[in-house]
Amino acid sequence: MVDAPLRLMGLDPGSQRTGYGIIQAGDRSKPELVAAGVISAPAKQPMERRLQKIYRELREVIASHRPQEMAVEGVFAAKNARTAIMLGQARGVALLAGAQDGLEVFEYPPASVKMALVGTGRATKEQVQMMVKAMLNTTARLPLDASDALALAICHLQSRKLLAKGLK
Amino acid sequence: MVDAPLRLMGLDPGSQRTGYGIIQAGDRSKPELVAAGVISAPAKQPMERRLQKIYRELREVIASHRPQEMAVEGVFAAKNARTAIMLGQARGVALLAGAQDGLEVFEYPPASVKMALVGTGRATKEQVQMMVKAMLNTTARLPLDASDALALAICHLQSRKLLAKGLK
Repeated sequence: MVDAPLRLMGLDPGSQRTGYGIIQAGDRSKPELVAAGVISAPAKQPMERRLQKIYRELREVIASHRPQEMAVEGVFAAKNARTAIMLGQARGVALLAGAQDGLEVFEYPPASVKMALVGTGRATKEQVQMMVKAMLNTTARLPLDASDALALAICHLQSRKLLAKGLK
Repeated sequence: MVDAPLRLMGLDPGSQRTGYGIIQAGDRSKPELVAAGVISAPAKQPMERRLQKIYRELREVIASHRPQEMAVEGVFAAKNARTAIMLGQARGVALLAGAQDGLEVFEYPPASVKMALVGTGRATKEQVQMMVKAMLNTTARLPLDASDALALAICHLQSRKLLAKGLK
């Protein structure tokens, strides 16, 4: 079972835009892009409807592509309490969507993700996107929220590999 | 239909303890306690499991008691970003639980709830609890998170009545 292809989902939740990306990786092959996109939840709708949309569409994505694990940003900074609570709400329903399908959730600090992909914790979203496209060998048009999500999935894959090596 | 009994749910979400309370009120009768309690989500469990527990148990409460509307605290202050995000996550799955059953959600600032019940925006949780018990004419033992939730339901009921009078 060690060589069975593994599907990992990266998630970049937000109260207005939630990016997601799924990659597939065997033990010896390079990771491939399976799916990526952005779920929009327009600010003019009531918050509970927006949360419902994020939850429903994420569950559809998970049902379609069957990832086994989920990586999200560990966010512990925000402009103010209101922003943090709004972000937390979107993050909560996103984590719930994964948990309902039995996905294990892993968290990575934003700086670690940038470091893993670009080699510096201060990389821009555009630099991250360029590396994501190169590493997945794709020319697909990706919104920045989607490439951020894919970066999380790639970071998680690298961390799993390092862990596996460490355990040998 | 104006005199049909109305069931309102108050909700006090938290990452470790989520209080809920449901009251029933006809147009001319005093409100009655239908149900109240606290959903515990132990801090030692992974966050996604805790969110799942809050979501699942709230949906059970809603299915059992069929409230028509939901009132939650409008929280826009927190000690720090981490606390706010943790609270936001619990709040997100709680709002989702209500939305999935078609409940309309209303928000009240904490000070307005205390003002509506005790007459001062600086009332303690114990004072709020005392007024909740008096107004619902109950001697039931209520945890503070549950009486806070019931206070939100009562505040929402009063606000609906004021609105109805204003529209006449």
